[in-house]
Amino acid sequence: MSNEVLSRGLEDVSVAETRLSQIDGEVGELTIGGFPVDELAVNATYEESVFLLLHDRLPSSEELDDFRSDLAARRGIGDEVHAVLQRAADEQKPAMDALRMGAAAATLGTGDEDVDEDIRRIVAVFPTIVATYWRYLQDEDPVEPRAEFSHAKNYLYMLNGVEPTDDEVRGLETYLNTVIDHGLNASTFSARVVVSTESDVVSAVTAAVGTLKGPLHGGAPGPVLDMLQTVHESGNPEEYVRETLAAGERLMGFGHRVYRVRDPRAAVLSEAAERFYEASDDDEFFQTVTSFEDVAVDILEEHKPDRRLQTNVEFYTAALLHGVGVPKELFTATFGISRVGGWTAHCREQLEDNRLIRPRARYVGENDRTWTPVSNR
Amino acid sequence: MSNEVLSRGLEDVSVAETRLSQIDGEVGELTIGGFPVDELAVNATYEESVFLLLHDRLPSSEELDDFRSDLAARRGIGDEVHAVLQRAADEQKPAMDALRMGAAAATLGTGDEDVDEDIRRIVAVFPTIVATYWRYLQDEDPVEPRAEFSHAKNYLYMLNGVEPTDDEVRGLETYLNTVIDHGLNASTFSARVVVSTESDVVSAVTAAVGTLKGPLHGGAPGPVLDMLQTVHESGNPEEYVRETLAAGERLMGFGHRVYRVRDPRAAVLSEAAERFYEASDDDEFFQTVTSFEDVAVDILEEHKPDRRLQTNVEFYTAALLHGVGVPKELFTATFGISRVGGWTAHCREQLEDNRLIRPRARYVGENDRTWTPVSNR
Repeated sequence: MSNEVLSRGLEDVSVAETRLSQIDGEVGELTIGGFPVDELAVNATYEESVFLLLHDRLPSSEELDDFRSDLAARRGIGDEVHAVLQRAADEQKPAMDALRMGAAAATLGTGDEDVDEDIRRIVAVFPTIVATYWRYLQDEDPVEPRAEFSHAKNYLYMLNGVEPTDDEVRGLETYLNTVIDHGLNASTFSARVVVSTESDVVSAVTAAVGTLKGPLHGGAPGPVLDMLQTVHESGNPEEYVRETLAAGERLMGFGHRVYRVRDPRAAVLSEAAERFYEASDDDEFFQTVTSFEDVAVDILEEHKPDRRLQTNVEFYTAALLHGVGVPKELFTATFGISRVGGWTAHCREQLEDNRLIRPRARYVGENDRTWTPVSNR
Repeated sequence: MSNEVLSRGLEDVSVAETRLSQIDGEVGELTIGGFPVDELAVNATYEESVFLLLHDRLPSSEELDDFRSDLAARRGIGDEVHAVLQRAADEQKPAMDALRMGAAAATLGTGDEDVDEDIRRIVAVFPTIVATYWRYLQDEDPVEPRAEFSHAKNYLYMLNGVEPTDDEVRGLETYLNTVIDHGLNASTFSARVVVSTESDVVSAVTAAVGTLKGPLHGGAPGPVLDMLQTVHESGNPEEYVRETLAAGERLMGFGHRVYRVRDPRAAVLSEAAERFYEASDDDEFFQTVTSFEDVAVDILEEHKPDRRLQTNVEFYTAALLHGVGVPKELFTATFGISRVGGWTAHCREQLEDNRLIRPRARYVGENDRTWTPVSNR
């Protein structure tokens, strides 16, 4: 124990080597699968991004077709999981609880454990779990997945029961690519800890869902949308920002533990949202969003000049997902629908060159207590 | 990043301060809740051990009664979870998969999230999940829990449908106390990573179940039993050990990553097994177990004199759990039924003084790839 280091947050400890993504928080750059995030996000389909993370290259046309069909064939969930999701909805459990339950049961109806098959199964089934729960929550019948639809298109279709527009699909696709991987964040790390015992991918992903659920990780894009809608109605972003800061509250959607400059994902999502809203009939809402950003950044600069607080990924997630038709109650679960691509690729990377992750704890408790029978206590 | 350390297994990194347990691998000592493991294991009921970990003291008689009744009232699972466990059994999924599914759904039928309520719920429901799955696997009707039975007694009752003997209950109880906590092992660590995002206890425990499932953690007490039974039939432990080592295989049930001497838990379980088998009519099997240990330790000493390989916790787990009536297919899940006490106490400890656990990864991938449309690949 002579070399023992105490690091409660592991901020300065690297636990893995990865080829999946790289964050440069100082200059605000994010590389995913070798691509700058903006290059990947706007060009790829989600299936291409997943393939890229798994194989470290883009698929050929034929490979992509095969991969898409394979994923599409793995979207179904059985009656028992339907019943669990129905009950979760009846009891108004959070969407992330429903996703945890569905993920944990995703091996039902599948064959023997196999890393690659489990990866494709769990990636494919996430939108089905979330959309099915949502339909039950709305007291509506769930919508069966349609194999001819892409991953992103099928998710929107299952949520809303109508075929989404190309702009909606492209908007969602850009989001899914943008947040698919982001270094060893807490959920990705928990997935790697799980498979480091040579456990299976579904167990690892279930763990990651539970980790992402926490507000210190998954954040609060839902409340960001509430904030933007409040400001849109009042028409006075400056007043909102000044009142929030005067009350000593943190302004949602600004600042990030890693980035010292604007989160590069915020830029990608901001542009995607701009493109989406310009082509929609809700352009006024987006005007509010951008003017809110401008006003807030200026006031934050004046309020905390040393912090350089900028919009983070949550801010434009809220605007974009709202635009394309994802209800705010599902924002964190939709983050999971994207991030499962990164989680599973990290599982495979960990298993390819595995080492059990087992840290130490420093003991600060009692010693040498002696037993007292309950009758003498 | 100037202080960055690369530690893939985190062996020399302490991630938490804990008062729950302390391992001294050099001298072979384990302290649980301030008690030497042998002092706690043989005296406590499982409910007392859980209370001790949560409150850092033993309960008064009245507190213990309240705690026992409270746990007993939280044992039920709903029809939807029954259906999931039935299907898991129909598909011959491993018991740890069934436990993961049941754990993930344990918030159904409960109220709003609350750390202490969630802890008691998840501790209480584990035996129900495992025993219900087991009954379905045997094509038998599940057995309803009985609130007047203690935690340990009720588990054996639900497994086998008959009231267990006092010796069986005491044997199981000693096992449950012995393995309830063991430093920051991988499953406990995964639970702490999950709640470090301020996620909930049920999510954390579900993650820990998935982690424990891995053979590098939960080990292989089932195969240890097969080995002991083979040797019991052949009557020739020496031949078995020599053949195994000559084939270059590892001898199951011996050696541990942390302990340089005999695992102190092996001593506790060995004595518990001895007491149990002496009072039973299967004493001959236990004779085989102890003579196998003696022979194997001698031959291992001769074979690897520098390693000092001794029996680990799996070895006597197999003998003891088999004796008290737990089927070998449930050994790892029964480990979980014990360890959930440690997991939940670690969750509360983490939440009492929380810090997000978010390590780094070292990037070894490509940079600045540029997009090629699929038609050009």
